[in-house]
Amino acid sequence: MLSAAKLVADIRAGKTRIGETLAQVFDTIDAEEELIGAFEAIDHGAARPPATGALCGLPVGIKDIFDTADMPSTYGSPIYAGHMARTDAAIVSLCRRAGATVIGKTVTTEFAFMHAGRTRNPHNPAYSPGGSSSGSAAAVAAGMLPLAVGTQTGGSVVRPASFCGIAGYKPTFGLLPTVGMKTFSWTLDTVGLFGAGVVDVALFAALLTGRDLEVSEEISPPRIGVVETHLWNEASGEMRAAVGEAARLAAAAGARVETLQLAGTYADAFAAHQVIQDFEANLALSYERDNHSDELSAILRETLDAGDAITPEAYDAAQATARSARHGLGKLFADVDVILTPSAPGAAPEGLGSTGSSIFNRLWTLMGTPAVNVPGLVGDKGLPLGVQIVGPVRVDKTTLAAAAWLERVIAARS
Amino acid sequence: MLSAAKLVADIRAGKTRIGETLAQVFDTIDAEEELIGAFEAIDHGAARPPATGALCGLPVGIKDIFDTADMPSTYGSPIYAGHMARTDAAIVSLCRRAGATVIGKTVTTEFAFMHAGRTRNPHNPAYSPGGSSSGSAAAVAAGMLPLAVGTQTGGSVVRPASFCGIAGYKPTFGLLPTVGMKTFSWTLDTVGLFGAGVVDVALFAALLTGRDLEVSEEISPPRIGVVETHLWNEASGEMRAAVGEAARLAAAAGARVETLQLAGTYADAFAAHQVIQDFEANLALSYERDNHSDELSAILRETLDAGDAITPEAYDAAQATARSARHGLGKLFADVDVILTPSAPGAAPEGLGSTGSSIFNRLWTLMGTPAVNVPGLVGDKGLPLGVQIVGPVRVDKTTLAAAAWLERVIAARS
Repeated sequence: MLSAAKLVADIRAGKTRIGETLAQVFDTIDAEEELIGAFEAIDHGAARPPATGALCGLPVGIKDIFDTADMPSTYGSPIYAGHMARTDAAIVSLCRRAGATVIGKTVTTEFAFMHAGRTRNPHNPAYSPGGSSSGSAAAVAAGMLPLAVGTQTGGSVVRPASFCGIAGYKPTFGLLPTVGMKTFSWTLDTVGLFGAGVVDVALFAALLTGRDLEVSEEISPPRIGVVETHLWNEASGEMRAAVGEAARLAAAAGARVETLQLAGTYADAFAAHQVIQDFEANLALSYERDNHSDELSAILRETLDAGDAITPEAYDAAQATARSARHGLGKLFADVDVILTPSAPGAAPEGLGSTGSSIFNRLWTLMGTPAVNVPGLVGDKGLPLGVQIVGPVRVDKTTLAAAAWLERVIAARS
Repeated sequence: MLSAAKLVADIRAGKTRIGETLAQVFDTIDAEEELIGAFEAIDHGAARPPATGALCGLPVGIKDIFDTADMPSTYGSPIYAGHMARTDAAIVSLCRRAGATVIGKTVTTEFAFMHAGRTRNPHNPAYSPGGSSSGSAAAVAAGMLPLAVGTQTGGSVVRPASFCGIAGYKPTFGLLPTVGMKTFSWTLDTVGLFGAGVVDVALFAALLTGRDLEVSEEISPPRIGVVETHLWNEASGEMRAAVGEAARLAAAAGARVETLQLAGTYADAFAAHQVIQDFEANLALSYERDNHSDELSAILRETLDAGDAITPEAYDAAQATARSARHGLGKLFADVDVILTPSAPGAAPEGLGSTGSSIFNRLWTLMGTPAVNVPGLVGDKGLPLGVQIVGPVRVDKTTLAAAAWLERVIAARS
């Protein structure tokens, strides 16, 4: 895999040149893409930004749920086959402003929902890379890109990062702009970032936003609350063991680790996620549902029908539940810096039919809290098992630092 | 003007037919449009929905800041001259689902900001109709449409409604979906509705959303707090007199009327509006700024430059100020149902160079509170002077009812 932080440091120090990095990336794409299928479009002649940009021209991939003016934007749907948008999405402009070279659109599930694309898991092509940001996660894991942009409405950043063994960062809601993203649920849609490791996504976020988000070399051990949620029994044995192992390693490395119980309001909020998502999706995709129903997957059509059956009163009640749960987050984080919890129910599922389940991500998406997949642990079949670090809203730097700290502790295990 | 509530009642009662209404509307457009210039596009052959729809096929106009698949979507910008979007915006789908006939796109200022279009005020064509929803407000005021859709980021619904002497309703933030609207500021952009009177916009909102928002015949006199804000001295003498007159009439009709002072945090929140708007606009319109700068108006270019100079820390501080002010709204509305305040600094400005100022609207847009322009009062030059009713977040029905009550009280004055 390609570390963006190392590449930027090497280019700045004159140890390598961006032309070499781009050549290496295109060579890897030539070698891997046919098997992995991470890209919807590749721009071999992508205009390179001035070398003065903070990202030094590093190549990035953009999930094909975002509009781009120079490559097709198909949103993973046959309705938009070949569609050329008139503008770049805001996150694409931010990438260019920060000096990235946008070299491709990465595969998304249909409208970033559940109907899978053709992307395979680089760790074992018989397995799913996760979704909905399938191509972004797989491209980084396969070394075809150092950085990629994705989105999460349920678990579409943290879960594929977990399955692919890379870092995935879902920032605090609204930190990165969704303008120019094909909307699924405006309460939930969150732009996220992928990189080889946590320091790489932190650097990417810092350079895109101009915010103090970079992770330093020296990080104090965080105070960690292990949260099993009411869905703990849905996690596989090896995932439960992975969370336990991460907690044990963290404690041994000096972190204060305690187990936290989630109040019942969070189980209610978990349930509210689907009500809000389905109700809003029926509005966000109203044109497609009303005019191109036969070109939607069965699972999406059924979900939009379910959304159409949700009353405004039920939607309002779900939003009230979410507000109440958000209000309680201060108490939840009163004595810990971050939460440690599974990134997914287990390792990647076999086959490409399903991109897996978002049940360990939905609550945190609805809460708007920053969440990071920490890679490094491996399951019985040699597939990655990610664990998730969640922090308080707007405390992204501490969250990223804690995730980077845990990543190092896991990497250093004997 | 055409009352949507009366038209729907008459069509349901068999007193008139939708074909007659549509013929009348197109006749009025033929007679008035050349002078008023309210439309960007007119679809004379608009497909009429099944007569079973709740809105009975009533014609509506859509501000040209929303995407439509069957008419150009130009966002008031030469960059998008002739642009055909691939989808309908969600609010357009909602109009069609509710049984409206979408017959045209109405003029917007450039990207719904300040650079004016060619629309004239139907009360006196030498004056501005207000903006940015210029065409929607003018078309309703000229009797060319019974209903129209607009948006408000600063004061773009309530202000043009005030200048045009019609009802304008900015719902609680998020009540109507912005999906498919050209974004200016995602924290502020709010979809709003225009109609001849408050009962008309209330009916429109009820039928679009399936919510209990209709205004009944019997309304109890509301408890009203008159709020001058720290900008009272910016209001013209006749606007201050209009608010006083509305308060006097309300009290005489049985309302409990008191004067409320706004805490200093609301002056801070007013100032925060511009920081948030400009910072987000520089991201939302990043593609246009980075690629089509020479096709932007000077005022927009300067605003985006100003947005680019705002630090993330200043933006975060502005958002924190806004949250704090929203948190205090419960106290503000503790003893009153609604607030009465100016809809604009005065009557419409002369000439078409400026669509007027949003200083009496920005705070309420940022707060996300429902706001309604109540028409009926008239200034020295015979131009309308609207007063604004603002209610608590998510208490739209009470807000609409209070506005309708005040509208009747004003209409019944001797």
